[in-house]
Amino acid sequence: MKLLEDKILECGKVLPGHVLKVDGFLNHQIDVKLLKAMAEEFYSEFSNADVNKILTIEASGIAIATLVADKFNCPLVFAKKNKTSNVADDVYAVPVHSYTHNRDFNVIVSKKYLNKEDVVLIIDDFLANGCALKGLVDLVNQAGASVAGCGIAIEKGFQDGGKTLRDSGYKICSLAIVENMTDHSLTFRKQ
Amino acid sequence: MKLLEDKILECGKVLPGHVLKVDGFLNHQIDVKLLKAMAEEFYSEFSNADVNKILTIEASGIAIATLVADKFNCPLVFAKKNKTSNVADDVYAVPVHSYTHNRDFNVIVSKKYLNKEDVVLIIDDFLANGCALKGLVDLVNQAGASVAGCGIAIEKGFQDGGKTLRDSGYKICSLAIVENMTDHSLTFRKQ
Repeated sequence: MKLLEDKILECGKVLPGHVLKVDGFLNHQIDVKLLKAMAEEFYSEFSNADVNKILTIEASGIAIATLVADKFNCPLVFAKKNKTSNVADDVYAVPVHSYTHNRDFNVIVSKKYLNKEDVVLIIDDFLANGCALKGLVDLVNQAGASVAGCGIAIEKGFQDGGKTLRDSGYKICSLAIVENMTDHSLTFRKQ
Repeated sequence: MKLLEDKILECGKVLPGHVLKVDGFLNHQIDVKLLKAMAEEFYSEFSNADVNKILTIEASGIAIATLVADKFNCPLVFAKKNKTSNVADDVYAVPVHSYTHNRDFNVIVSKKYLNKEDVVLIIDDFLANGCALKGLVDLVNQAGASVAGCGIAIEKGFQDGGKTLRDSGYKICSLAIVENMTDHSLTFRKQ
């Protein structure tokens, strides 16, 4: 999506350790107009999939996922990161490692809000090694629901999360795929 | 707002300790259609205030705040809860006690995203003792920006956060104010 790629080139900052900082428009200050255009893209990509629920994970995924849920006119569920290892029996839970915080979380969703009739579009802001996204897919599978696909704002194409999930048969739509990044340049995969 | 009050009566659950559980439509599963109607209410309440930025706090405030920012056609900034006591010098920070988690956080916003020219509408899902909201007001004041007011989904009118802030001169617009709640009944303040 050219609009997003241009915004990344204009406002993104590459930090050591392959960190792409986009807190000017995606995950601290949020450019809602841009996110609406991104939600339109996800809608045209998945509008034939009978999606009836959007799933994301707190916190940075919520803004874009809200706008996607608005397009699909369906509810949004956001999974929570639970720091305690105790898991109540009224939730689906999956352990996920966060490289950002270098710790494990239980990612949970109340069983009330994912059902086997649901066709779920998973939305998140970033896809790198895929830990969080695989966790969300796992929660949908635990509920016996269907995964319509995953809509991602920015994928780091040089990490293997996207490849693994596509190889497993999931439809992954990333609006910008960073193929390569250094302090001085950033290139996108042609889509 | 009758639509919200009806939804609280229909789906809310009162738990011991004056907890009002609304995770079926406000802070886990999200009824985006209802939140859009709520955003319209905030817009009509503050449309004359020259608002150019929406501020909320992660995570539950983000969905409603995104829809409000869409109405005002302006950026959204969400403050982050920082568990470490170290505060970088490129952020505004304020310590906030969370009664839900029984611990203190530093609530932070990057100095880049709040400026003295900003007229800020603060949005959150709940107002009870007001700790979080007072923290957000403090961040706006640190930046030398103006507070247009605060838009709250549900206020617990029997706790004093709303009163204290109104007494300090801030315009607080709460779409539903719970005056009293027990296991068996829930009454709203007439507005």
